[in-house]
Amino acid sequence: MNKIDLVGMVAGICTTISFLPQVVKIVRTKHTRDISLPMYVIFSLGVFMWACYGFMTNSLPIILANTVTLALAFYILSAKVKYK
Amino acid sequence: MNKIDLVGMVAGICTTISFLPQVVKIVRTKHTRDISLPMYVIFSLGVFMWACYGFMTNSLPIILANTVTLALAFYILSAKVKYK
Repeated sequence: MNKIDLVGMVAGICTTISFLPQVVKIVRTKHTRDISLPMYVIFSLGVFMWACYGFMTNSLPIILANTVTLALAFYILSAKVKYK
Repeated sequence: MNKIDLVGMVAGICTTISFLPQVVKIVRTKHTRDISLPMYVIFSLGVFMWACYGFMTNSLPIILANTVTLALAFYILSAKVKYK
């Protein structure tokens, strides 16, 4: 793996796993008041489309990263609706 | 522009502008209690590395999308530290 691929891989891992601490915080506190509902609606839609883009271009890294991110973002979105 | 490029472009616009409603919410309420600090530390680092990846691969769309996202994410991160 060259240096450029490595930077892209670390970038993808960071932006994907970054949503995990937010999920853990919501599971613990059940508080979502300060989280923006429109943010997670638009973000989830965008990540879903990134996953579609991954399927259309046969890019396994894009599919994997965005499927994981979508699961985490969708949990935050549903928690925001539930605990509003 | 073909269908695949269009899906990627819409995906990129969605995931980039999605952070704007969160910024507006914080500007209005000055409340960040329910937002995860580690999420925005890891996310900002990841977006910064995506921007580097864009520079390394000479990809203007990746540079533009991630520079805007970084500005929005960095505002949320600094507000989280300020209004903790």
